[in-house]
Parts: sequence; C-alpha cells; structure tokens
Amino acid sequence: MSEQVTLYLHKLSPFSQKVELALIEANAPYRGYHVNLSDKPEWFTSKVNPVGKVPTLTYGGPRVDPEDPSSLSSKITESNVILEFLADVYPDSGLLPKDPVSRAKVRSFVDASTKQVEGPLYDFIRGLGSYEDLLKGIEFVQGLLEDGDFAVGDHYTIADACISPQLVRLKTITETDLGKFPVGLGFKLGEELKGSKFAKFTKYADQILERSSLKQTYDEVRIFPLPWW
Amino acid sequence: MSEQVTLYLHKLSPFSQKVELALIEANAPYRGYHVNLSDKPEWFTSKVNPVGKVPTLTYGGPRVDPEDPSSLSSKITESNVILEFLADVYPDSGLLPKDPVSRAKVRSFVDASTKQVEGPLYDFIRGLGSYEDLLKGIEFVQGLLEDGDFAVGDHYTIADACISPQLVRLKTITETDLGKFPVGLGFKLGEELKGSKFAKFTKYADQILERSSLKQTYDEVRIFPLPWW
Ligand SMILES: N[C@@H](CCC(=O)N[C@@H](CS)C(=O)NCC(=O)O)C(=O)O
Ligand SMILES: N[C@@H](CCC(=O)N[C@@H](CS)C(=O)NCC(=O)O)C(=O)O
Repeated sequence: MSEQVTLYLHKLSPFSQKVELALIEANAPYRGYHVNLSDKPEWFTSKVNPVGKVPTLTYGGPRVDPEDPSSLSSKITESNVILEFLADVYPDSGLLPKDPVSRAKVRSFVDASTKQVEGPLYDFIRGLGSYEDLLKGIEFVQGLLEDGDFAVGDHYTIADACISPQLVRLKTITETDLGKFPVGLGFKLGEELKGSKFAKFTKYADQILERSSLKQTYDEVRIFPLPWW
Repeated sequence: MSEQVTLYLHKLSPFSQKVELALIEANAPYRGYHVNLSDKPEWFTSKVNPVGKVPTLTYGGPRVDPEDPSSLSSKITESNVILEFLADVYPDSGLLPKDPVSRAKVRSFVDASTKQVEGPLYDFIRGLGSYEDLLKGIEFVQGLLEDGDFAVGDHYTIADACISPQLVRLKTITETDLGKFPVGLGFKLGEELKGSKFAKFTKYADQILERSSLKQTYDEVRIFPLPWW
C-alpha cells in the first residue's frame, strides 16, 4: 500500500490550489484538510507547520486523524517544493518530464511564473502592485510557452499546476473588476489580454481553464473578495 | 562522449558562484566564460540569454567558441534552475539525494536560503535591507540545518552550493565591515553570529568555508566593494 498523503489547505489559497491540482492531475490518492486560517488550531503550528501556512503536505507515517497529526510523517511546506516532491513520488504521472533539458524548461516556467506573475498579480489584486509589472510578467511568461496545449511539452506538468491559480484569478478580475486596484483597471487588463499581442497566452489560459481539475478546485463566488489577503 | 557544458559567469556574481560550486563538487567537466557585464557583448543577449544575465549555462550542441554560441545548444538560466539541472544530468554526483523526502528537505533549504538569506543579505550589503530581516532569515535557515557537515544529509548537495556564496560574503562583511550598511553594522553582525544562539549556523558555515571548491570560486579582494550591484 502506498504512503498516506494529507494536504492541509485553504479553499481560497492559490498556493494550496497549485498542489491540489497536481494531486488531481497525477491521480494521486490524498486527503484534503481545510485549515481555518482565521482561527488557526494550535495543533497545526505545533505539529504540522511551525510557520503556520498552507499548503503543507504530510507524507507517510500512520493513517491518523488530520487533527491529530503523527510525529512520524514527513511535513513538506512551500507549494513549489511540494510540486517537485509530488513529481518525485509519482514519477510516471508526467508532472515532470524525464529528460533533463525538458525538466529545466518546466522549472524555468515555474520560476518565471512565480516571480513574474504570481507575485505581481497578488500584489495587484491587493492594490499594492503595478499594472505594468503584471503585464510585463505575463508577456515574459508568454515567451516561454511552447506551441501546444500545455506550458511545456505535450503533457500536464507542474508548470501548468503552478500558473493555473493565477490564470483563473486573472479571469475573475478581468471579468468582474473585483480587487483593490483602481476601479476599471481589471476590465482594462482584460481588454489588453484580448489583443493580438497576448493571443498565445490567452489561448493557453483558455485551454487550461477548461480542465476539470481546475473547476474542482476553484470556487469563484467564495474567493472574491479576499478577506485575509 | 558527454555533452558540452559552458557556463557564462561573472567572477563577482554570487549566483554564478552557486553554479560553479555545483559543477566543481560534481566533478563535472565544463568551460567557464567570463562575461563583461559592464560592456556586455551583443552576442550574449542575442544568442545566449535575452535577459542578459549570468549565470547562463549552455548544454549540448557542437563544441564551439563561447563567443560564437551555437543555436543547437540548450540555454538554461536562473541559478536555482541550473542547480536542479546539474543534479538531473549528474544523478550520481549526490547533488540531490535519491529519496523523495530527502530531496524535499534539500529543496526546502534552497527555497528558504534564497528567500530568507540571499535576498535580505544582498539588500543589506547594498544598504537597502534591514539588519533584523537578515538575522531572522539566518535563524530560520539555521533551524533547517541537520546535524553533520552538510546542510542536509551526509553529502554535499545543491543546498550547500546555494547558500555558500552568502556564507562567504557574510564572512567578509562581518570581518571587514565593507558594504553600504551603516558603519559598524557588519562588525555587529559578526559579534551576534559568534554568540551561542547562532552556534549551529556558524559551525556549519565554518565547515563549508574550508572546502576547496569555495576557495577556487571566491576572490575576496576583487569582490569588495561591489561596483555593479
Ligand atoms: N510561499 C508559500 C506561500 C503560502 C502562503 O502564504 N499561504 C497563506 C494562504 S494563501 C497562508 O497560509 N497564510 C496564513 C498565515 O500566514 O497565517 C507557498 O508557496 O506555499
Ligand atoms: N535570479 C538570478 C539572478 C541573476 C543576476 O541577477 N545576475 C546578475 C549578476 S549577479 C547579472 O547578470 N546582472 C547583469 C544585468 O542584469 O545586466 C539567478 O539566480 O540566476
């Protein structure tokens, strides 16, 4: 029997969503446990993640109640580290290709989408980041996209899982203008992304947004507005 | 015969140093080419890395003059992505352990040292970052150190390569007080790191600083002051 996998997550957390997406796409059995971040249980910081953040994944050890975590499981934090871990534990999932150069392409995409879209997008939504930085980031990441349905190669990888939470939030803010940026800037971004300059990015995003893994892990109505960002 | 490996680097670049360290520790044959960053050659941005940064590694393709790069080689950028690539290409180097949980520990260390020491340290040296953030980052990373000579496990990994450029620069600034921070703060940091609170970190740093890979890749006299930071 395979090792137990428990994912401590929050339904509104884009970092948690990355990991859930990878688990679903890898067809990996796991138990999800929703952590109440506004009233964090004591056992979560004392026994799961001292930093107190989600996602955190526990791996191995006895199959226990998630609220009574075992000291025998490994605790893995940071969404991108967890993505790599899942690719290692499920080598046949295709979450990472086998060839080192293709793996490096996936990782370059993960690196760029994290630094240049994830950071700027969430800053933008919180009214802290600039419109221009976000657009430049999207353009850079677009430059890394290969032709085809996936970010890199012909299979769903951690690159797709890593950027998906941002793609879906981009869709929401450009359609609803919800966010702490100046009124109208969400709609403006939407118009800009519909232009020919961003055709490749938009085509890719539309394909990814169709996947059932994404629909299973995103609840638009509850996610906006964002109470604890 | 194995594929060609060329590392475009700058002798003063801590990001380049990470990669050189990993290559040396893996006993990997490579050619290093020093890029003049203050007068960047046109071919570097047009044919090697459009972003114009070092380190960039080229892999495969014909063995050409580094100043006349081939379109047939793969170009890999971002020091941490290159580190993972080297671990993939040299699976027996020990740059990453084989077991998924140990690999995740190495990657957690890479992630934490990049976000919590690398960023804060270079900001501090440039007079932009806070002393407290840097110290907190060091304390956090110290918490991840295992007992033994290496960051994780009993072998030199990309975790050690990733933090080494910072360890050696920490040594320089705490011994010389050179940097754009307020006068005396470098010495103060040195005193603090000598205290019992940081004993584990300091012991680890001292061990890593003894390695010949580190001595081969660090030229203190030329590195301080830092003209192009
Ligand atoms: N860099 C982390 C970010 C994780 C993170 O910030 N999680 C947020 C939720 S989106 C959280 O747990 N916040 C609760 C807290 O900080 O108390 C990752 O990628 O996993
Ligand atoms: N995040 C990058 C940073 C690379 C970087 O900033 N390199 C600097 C030298 S330390 C550079 O090439 N600067 C030249 C430029 O930006 O024109 C990495 O880890 O590789």
